[in-house]
Amino acid sequence: MTEKTIAQLRARVNEINRQLLDLLAARGALVREIGQVKESKALDAFDPVREGEQLAALVAANPGPFSDATIKRLFTEIFRASLDLMTGERDRRLRVSRAARDADTVFQIGDVTVGAAPLLVAGPCSIESEAQLDATAAHLASRGVKILRGGAHKPRTSPYSFQGIGDVGYRWLGETARRHGMIAISEVMDDKAVAAAAPWVDILQIGARNMSNFRLLEAAREVGKPVLLKRGSAATYEELLLAAEYLIAGTDRIILCERGIRTFEPWTRNTLDISAVPILRGASHLPVCVDVSHAAGRKDILAALARAALAAGANLLMVEVHPAPEFALSDARQQLDFGEFDEFCRDIADLCPLCTAG
Amino acid sequence: MTEKTIAQLRARVNEINRQLLDLLAARGALVREIGQVKESKALDAFDPVREGEQLAALVAANPGPFSDATIKRLFTEIFRASLDLMTGERDRRLRVSRAARDADTVFQIGDVTVGAAPLLVAGPCSIESEAQLDATAAHLASRGVKILRGGAHKPRTSPYSFQGIGDVGYRWLGETARRHGMIAISEVMDDKAVAAAAPWVDILQIGARNMSNFRLLEAAREVGKPVLLKRGSAATYEELLLAAEYLIAGTDRIILCERGIRTFEPWTRNTLDISAVPILRGASHLPVCVDVSHAAGRKDILAALARAALAAGANLLMVEVHPAPEFALSDARQQLDFGEFDEFCRDIADLCPLCTAG
Amino acid sequence: MTEKTIAQLRARVNEINRQLLDLLAARGALVREIGQVKESKALDAFDPVREGEQLAALVAANPGPFSDATIKRLFTEIFRASLDLMTGERDRRLRVSRAARDADTVFQIGDVTVGAAPLLVAGPCSIESEAQLDATAAHLASRGVKILRGGAHKPRTSPYSFQGIGDVGYRWLGETARRHGMIAISEVMDDKAVAAAAPWVDILQIGARNMSNFRLLEAAREVGKPVLLKRGSAATYEELLLAAEYLIAGTDRIILCERGIRTFEPWTRNTLDISAVPILRGASHLPVCVDVSHAAGRKDILAALARAALAAGANLLMVEVHPAPEFALSDARQQLDFGEFDEFCRDIADLCPLCTAG
Amino acid sequence: MTEKTIAQLRARVNEINRQLLDLLAARGALVREIGQVKESKALDAFDPVREGEQLAALVAANPGPFSDATIKRLFTEIFRASLDLMTGERDRRLRVSRAARDADTVFQIGDVTVGAAPLLVAGPCSIESEAQLDATAAHLASRGVKILRGGAHKPRTSPYSFQGIGDVGYRWLGETARRHGMIAISEVMDDKAVAAAAPWVDILQIGARNMSNFRLLEAAREVGKPVLLKRGSAATYEELLLAAEYLIAGTDRIILCERGIRTFEPWTRNTLDISAVPILRGASHLPVCVDVSHAAGRKDILAALARAALAAGANLLMVEVHPAPEFALSDARQQLDFGEFDEFCRDIADLCPLCTAG
Repeated sequence: MTEKTIAQLRARVNEINRQLLDLLAARGALVREIGQVKESKALDAFDPVREGEQLAALVAANPGPFSDATIKRLFTEIFRASLDLMTGERDRRLRVSRAARDADTVFQIGDVTVGAAPLLVAGPCSIESEAQLDATAAHLASRGVKILRGGAHKPRTSPYSFQGIGDVGYRWLGETARRHGMIAISEVMDDKAVAAAAPWVDILQIGARNMSNFRLLEAAREVGKPVLLKRGSAATYEELLLAAEYLIAGTDRIILCERGIRTFEPWTRNTLDISAVPILRGASHLPVCVDVSHAAGRKDILAALARAALAAGANLLMVEVHPAPEFALSDARQQLDFGEFDEFCRDIADLCPLCTAG
Repeated sequence: MTEKTIAQLRARVNEINRQLLDLLAARGALVREIGQVKESKALDAFDPVREGEQLAALVAANPGPFSDATIKRLFTEIFRASLDLMTGERDRRLRVSRAARDADTVFQIGDVTVGAAPLLVAGPCSIESEAQLDATAAHLASRGVKILRGGAHKPRTSPYSFQGIGDVGYRWLGETARRHGMIAISEVMDDKAVAAAAPWVDILQIGARNMSNFRLLEAAREVGKPVLLKRGSAATYEELLLAAEYLIAGTDRIILCERGIRTFEPWTRNTLDISAVPILRGASHLPVCVDVSHAAGRKDILAALARAALAAGANLLMVEVHPAPEFALSDARQQLDFGEFDEFCRDIADLCPLCTAG
Repeated sequence: MTEKTIAQLRARVNEINRQLLDLLAARGALVREIGQVKESKALDAFDPVREGEQLAALVAANPGPFSDATIKRLFTEIFRASLDLMTGERDRRLRVSRAARDADTVFQIGDVTVGAAPLLVAGPCSIESEAQLDATAAHLASRGVKILRGGAHKPRTSPYSFQGIGDVGYRWLGETARRHGMIAISEVMDDKAVAAAAPWVDILQIGARNMSNFRLLEAAREVGKPVLLKRGSAATYEELLLAAEYLIAGTDRIILCERGIRTFEPWTRNTLDISAVPILRGASHLPVCVDVSHAAGRKDILAALARAALAAGANLLMVEVHPAPEFALSDARQQLDFGEFDEFCRDIADLCPLCTAG
Repeated sequence: MTEKTIAQLRARVNEINRQLLDLLAARGALVREIGQVKESKALDAFDPVREGEQLAALVAANPGPFSDATIKRLFTEIFRASLDLMTGERDRRLRVSRAARDADTVFQIGDVTVGAAPLLVAGPCSIESEAQLDATAAHLASRGVKILRGGAHKPRTSPYSFQGIGDVGYRWLGETARRHGMIAISEVMDDKAVAAAAPWVDILQIGARNMSNFRLLEAAREVGKPVLLKRGSAATYEELLLAAEYLIAGTDRIILCERGIRTFEPWTRNTLDISAVPILRGASHLPVCVDVSHAAGRKDILAALARAALAAGANLLMVEVHPAPEFALSDARQQLDFGEFDEFCRDIADLCPLCTAG
């Protein structure tokens, strides 16, 4: 008999479900109508006073058995869904999201195709001289690398550390890259650097410390060049996607870059969050890069991390290479020399056919 | 005219709100009835298949304008509220929560009242000898300390570190405490230690590494003695409260203890999460202790952390004191000597009237 | 006999200790001499090639019993100590450190003394209108608050959230503060905002997201006004102190501000790191502020956190107050209304005599 | 002339380096001799009093230019190096380390070779019935899986959640595995479970919550069976290796298992720390497993994480498979059904030749 009773009770629950559905639909239609009137008058869709009044009225009328808190929670959800209807595509469908564009974003810079087969981005941490750049670019180009990196301005934790060679570095980098049939990427830290870099550099890099420097994001989107945006060391995936959304009004040639997050583990400089690769590629149509050098902060695991990144679906890999790392002016411990880079290429060759170890 | 239209549309929304409310109430009543039938048959309240069927039916019938995802989300909220009605007190109203008992839990151990005016818990990290304990207890008792701590078994990260003096320590600690008019607290690591400690020790301590060792929690609750439960170094407040819920079937004389969480900051051993004090005291009726020694891992900030803990409402403070910390067999850097302890007492005196620096 | 042998061996160890000491001293004197020659020629003290050569020579000559790795480690320590001698005050003695200035930094802005008795900084999260500011300032001034806060530009995670009223907010804030006998503080996000804020605002605020925006730090130090520098949500104490070191070339009127760090705990917006107060005050001579509103992200624990901060030695407390928080354009959940603020003042009154609840 | 002077000064520094080296060697030889005397008398190598006396004497005699703090630091390093000589293999060369055994540990359980070609460990989160186990094992065996997992006792955060089927589960699991030509692994939570599991299960699993439950580690090592040891959700690599060191006295058939660490990121249940794979394999000779199900907490990224783990060098992969995940009694959201498992196998096939999708 119990089963029968439960079945009967359930049938009535089903009925009520349907009635709730119809009422929600009717409510949704009304709210959408209100939204259209508001939009025609440029009124704000979100009206907290009105929400407060509705909640108060509902709680006052609450017959039970749900608690007032539960009723508030349920109707707040209903209000939120209704607000979404009003604000429509604006908020819910970020332009960087898969919901907004189903196909992968693939773009061309010169003869380099970003977002398709995996690419290597390599070069020294800091630009130190034209000779250093030229030697590095010559070696990298001979190994099939197409994107040359190098820092002109370096964001340094201490004001007394080497701060970079300055704006001239952008020119050196751009000229060196062209000379070797490569394209160039370099970090920019403010609007002046954006202006100085733009004529010489093919991709502007926004560093992890500046991911939430929204003024810099705005300056970068003004010039309309491709941007590689690094995830802050304590930024969530959502925050990274929202930072990219700041850029997309100016360009959709955006690369998201995972470079490790800050955790309690002391044996690595950062913890490479490998889940970022499939999650960002699933949530967004933008290509994803993994910077293995900054994630690891040590050389011995670079190839393993690069293999993991490629296997997980990364579109680009960034790695630091220097002619003589032990004399480098920054990050000496994590840069590969040419021999180590060749070994690195051999270690990842089965997963990255575009690069060769010569 | 617009305002009039909006007002009219809003009046219809209000009407629908009321109809939704009535339907939800009716649905709630039905679900509660189903719950009672199920309980009488010992069936599980949560039935994922049934939920899946309802959702599928609703999505199939969805007339818009809400997306299917929104409909699923709204009804999942409604199902969750209904499930809460069914499971009732069991899940939602944890016995450790304020919802289950409004007044602070205050209990007596001998002539010590726990949960009212703030108390100090002090003593060496490890028990090393009866002489060491006696000297420490004599000093502490003369300063008004009522609870003597000391580790008989030490959970050590390395198997080659000093592992504690063993079960005999419990007897030494208990006898010493009684001789000086104090009560004793010591850590237990398994059911055997619980049995060995129970005759001698007044409060069983569960360490941070063992907060989620549910078998140990069960063993401790069997003996019915007061328990001090330390928060794991990466445990959430909710997990701590649920671990305490494991204990409460055996005793409600439980002390929750914050001792720092693991973060990226290297200048402290752990990060003392001071918000734990007001949040745990708000969410639960149980008294809250702060272990400043393990949180800090350094002596120079102990008094400041202790002051913060007392000001935030902690019921107990735990601090390590050793006759000669530089010769201690564990945690040499964070234990106070007698002179430092007196200074510590002076530094916190205005916030902790029960203890004096002599 | 054993004891005798050990004593004899130890005597010889003591002798060698003394010889090592003398050699280290002689080496130190030489290195200092080299440093002086280098400084006169503007050569860099640190010479990694030279270090590498010395290490290689030592390892080649290593007679045992120490391993080559141990010899490298010991001499790297010796090199580091020697380098410290050369670089002298520059690197080791940061100008923000206690080593550089023993006394607390105390400074005057109008009739407000920063760095002595604790002060409250209060006001709305975002500036919304002159009326909102005036009502808030009137209430706060009547409670003894001397520093009025309010955001003109808001750094928002989403490009679609309210971004602040803009530059006009700085003028409104400054004028309102003066009208009520207060001083004004507001956040700046780039060099343009620094220029816009400087004429109106008494303290420039650098937000947590911009702590490592070194270009902004440089722009702020140019104007020479007092700066409140917030700790990044995943920044170490050391990184905060180094960011402050960027500022100190322009002004020593710097306030360090703890506002919570990002951890795994979901029940608070951030984890207030209370240890920051004694540690920053010990390591630096600069005053320390605690922003309880952003740390907590909820109202119910604000007073407890404020009490903890004061008890731990904070020089300033920052708290968000809004005439009608439920209608606020940002951070609605964490701002206090006037009645709640009065209660907050009563709750902290015993630890903060300068502010009164009227 | 400067260069000449510097060269001369440097020559003298080189000379002193050599003298320091000789003195250190002589000191090392003496300390080793003391250590041998002590060992013959079972005295402790580490003698903090003696160290304190030496440091005091050195500081008293310090002629400059190094500060007393620097002298203390340098000699503490020298003492530490000397102590390492005395304690020798004991502390520095953990038996789980590569230093102790250069070759990878490879072992045989039945016809399964662990530590060579990558293996899959699969099965339901919780054992629910013999039928459930049999269906799962039949499917997995047909896909080439050799190791069947399933939880008999489940460590659950809430005392009111399903706690597992109990000891009978071990027998069901073992019998099912044998019937399908597989071996069995299941978690043990205390010494009683170890005893109950040992006759039926081929590999004992220590869960993440119990990694630092040293009593359980001791109980597990007593039985001498292979153990899979999961990393705690906030444990460092070093702590994991030290926990394994607790086991190795009983068995060297140990598998280290990375299963994600707790971070601030809310879109995954845990953050899979992929660097753990190369670092643990480099630091230890033991095989490394990656539990992708617990790391991810969601199905959509399991294959990407599994590919990353294999590419980084993992020896085993653990993944949860259930005949009907939506009806599972625990972890419903992260378990794969049979079709999803086949797809998973296809997705990783190029990196894991031993398993097939049929």
